[in-house]
Amino acid sequence: MEEKVIQLQINYKTLEEFEKFREYGQEELYMREELEENIVENQNNSPFYGMYIGDKLVARMSLYKIDKKYDRYFNPPQDYYELCKLEVLPDYQKKGLGKKLIRFAQSLGCPIKVNVRCGANSYFQNLGFEPAKYNPVRDRAENPYIWEP
Amino acid sequence: MEEKVIQLQINYKTLEEFEKFREYGQEELYMREELEENIVENQNNSPFYGMYIGDKLVARMSLYKIDKKYDRYFNPPQDYYELCKLEVLPDYQKKGLGKKLIRFAQSLGCPIKVNVRCGANSYFQNLGFEPAKYNPVRDRAENPYIWEP
Repeated sequence: MEEKVIQLQINYKTLEEFEKFREYGQEELYMREELEENIVENQNNSPFYGMYIGDKLVARMSLYKIDKKYDRYFNPPQDYYELCKLEVLPDYQKKGLGKKLIRFAQSLGCPIKVNVRCGANSYFQNLGFEPAKYNPVRDRAENPYIWEP
Repeated sequence: MEEKVIQLQINYKTLEEFEKFREYGQEELYMREELEENIVENQNNSPFYGMYIGDKLVARMSLYKIDKKYDRYFNPPQDYYELCKLEVLPDYQKKGLGKKLIRFAQSLGCPIKVNVRCGANSYFQNLGFEPAKYNPVRDRAENPYIWEP
């Protein structure tokens, strides 16, 4: 498959696609309100990236750029991406789409931090991520993994 | 069932019980290292609470007390609990054990914040939690719910 990772424009069509994902929550509801209040569509600075098959969004993630002054993971501190909401719709799993999204994030030239969910440790380790040294105050029950270019 | 919620002592037996839970990760590995390095067992200030049936730990959660100077959820700012890792082993679900853990947390006299996973919104709403007003900088893809006494 030759699907491309694209930055998603936040508009009503994208939000409708988002409803198919399990990790649909307050962030998406907030974006809908923002759309309704501002009547600003197709803003280009969305944190969401995704992959379409035909006209269907089948995988997505968000990447938040964190300024180095807030960096508590890398030494020396640097700008990095926080990767969240990585998700592939059930019928499209096991095809490497999640890996393509992560490889895309890795191509952006910054370190990445991700909070890894139960059971996905080896998935991220195979992509070069390593567990961050656990810090009980900083990580408070998180399971942080980091990757550096 | 009359299971009681107890604060869990961090010792090798507890950590062995923790291995049965899905959300076993770096925090648990860190606690094991701490045990090994310090040879301090049975410390009484663990953030973990749980319920036993017979000698088996079947449900757990962690509660981190957050000082009001770090509070970004309540108005006015106050000391509150961050609730994480709420989990009931599969064979013991649908028996109200998760609710008992949450009710216990609610009995401690402080507000509570929890990041709710996909699909569990109504579970927490039935226990009096409400979605926090989404703040994109603070919440960054989280799905925070709050409860006040």
